[in-house]
Amino acid sequence: MTNTLILLRHGQSEWNQKNLFTGWVDVRLTEQGRGEAARAGELLAEAGVLPDVLHTSVLSRAIQTANLALDTADRLWIPVKRSWRLNERHYGALQGLDKAETLEKYGEQQFMEWRRSFDTPPPALDDASEWSQANDPRYAGIDGERPQTECLKDVIVRLLPYWEGEILPDLNAGRTVLVTAHGNSLRALVKHLEGISDADIAALNIPTGMPLVYEIEADGTPVGPGRYLDPDAAAAGAAAVAAQGKH
Amino acid sequence: MTNTLILLRHGQSEWNQKNLFTGWVDVRLTEQGRGEAARAGELLAEAGVLPDVLHTSVLSRAIQTANLALDTADRLWIPVKRSWRLNERHYGALQGLDKAETLEKYGEQQFMEWRRSFDTPPPALDDASEWSQANDPRYAGIDGERPQTECLKDVIVRLLPYWEGEILPDLNAGRTVLVTAHGNSLRALVKHLEGISDADIAALNIPTGMPLVYEIEADGTPVGPGRYLDPDAAAAGAAAVAAQGKH
Repeated sequence: MTNTLILLRHGQSEWNQKNLFTGWVDVRLTEQGRGEAARAGELLAEAGVLPDVLHTSVLSRAIQTANLALDTADRLWIPVKRSWRLNERHYGALQGLDKAETLEKYGEQQFMEWRRSFDTPPPALDDASEWSQANDPRYAGIDGERPQTECLKDVIVRLLPYWEGEILPDLNAGRTVLVTAHGNSLRALVKHLEGISDADIAALNIPTGMPLVYEIEADGTPVGPGRYLDPDAAAAGAAAVAAQGKH
Repeated sequence: MTNTLILLRHGQSEWNQKNLFTGWVDVRLTEQGRGEAARAGELLAEAGVLPDVLHTSVLSRAIQTANLALDTADRLWIPVKRSWRLNERHYGALQGLDKAETLEKYGEQQFMEWRRSFDTPPPALDDASEWSQANDPRYAGIDGERPQTECLKDVIVRLLPYWEGEILPDLNAGRTVLVTAHGNSLRALVKHLEGISDADIAALNIPTGMPLVYEIEADGTPVGPGRYLDPDAAAAGAAAVAAQGKH
């Protein structure tokens, strides 16, 4: 007896389009991103993979993606749970910086370490920065845990309690679970699910707006690797993510 | 110590536009309705009346309205609870019928009794009808309570446990609560809150897309009548609702 988990990275955001480091900055989807989200809902409906419950981050671009996909899949009415533990990796002092300028200024080695190092976070973001979430009411209840920078290892540490405590119990209640989240919070979850090594996770890129489906055992292990509902589009999307900053 | 309750009727739906009895049939918003919903979010933001938690029906037009209003008000991230108890009145065998044709066929007395009688429901809708919700998965868990027709009195009976058990506790936890629902489920709630008589409730019309704000005491009674954030537009909207079917 397994249950179905669907992972969905939000569609293109305003800052994806501008090629800026985003992290916890709360930008919206572009028109292209809205189209990706609606298409994801079509893919779910066509495949008959219909979520019974939604888990989202508290960032608007993931919530917009879920709302548009569920509207297309005719599942707007399912229960919703949100958590900051599904948020994108906090990008520290890189938040708000241009990726191409950062690459040019600091060089490829430092750039790739910030983007893909497993356990070295970027410099911390000062709470006085315009890109800080120090005064954002959505984090008022978690102030002691609110990060000022994160590496992927940090994301795994704050994500896994939510996987174990909220998502897995929903799966084990027989529900098909949709998780709409972010490039790095989903990389963290996929690393855990598929047992990818600290070294190999650097090469994993998750495309935007492509439903990634797992069958999950009661103990939380997947039956085989994840499967994209549109594999050709997903491969092209992953290659585009890998090339970010290089133009 | 009072807390703030915001009631919001969904914007124009596809069947509002076509002048059909809708009830539990799950139609979507029109472009006009989407604009009304976004405008409602602007009104909330301009007034600084920002919801901390959302309660919606399980009908898509109310959920779409909430999603659009919260996006405009920058509150997409608040927790959400949904319940069939906030659904529109089930219109029984009238669901799917044209309002003007029904008025012509049955006459004004019968028409107004179906629309505004407090305790006489329309004929029941057969579960075999294309407009029945007998096979809708969102009601699988409440099959014994799923109505086949309702008068306003029936709506009050199924709504009040949700008001007492879910909405009032959120208010008493100090939260500003947004309820996005329907013409008749909101009439039922306003009747209860304001102590409107069974006779007088017939004349109350709630406009679409207009936030209606109450300050609520701990025992659930409001401090004074509700106030529309845009009173002039609300008065015009209520008059338009009252005129439905008469064109």
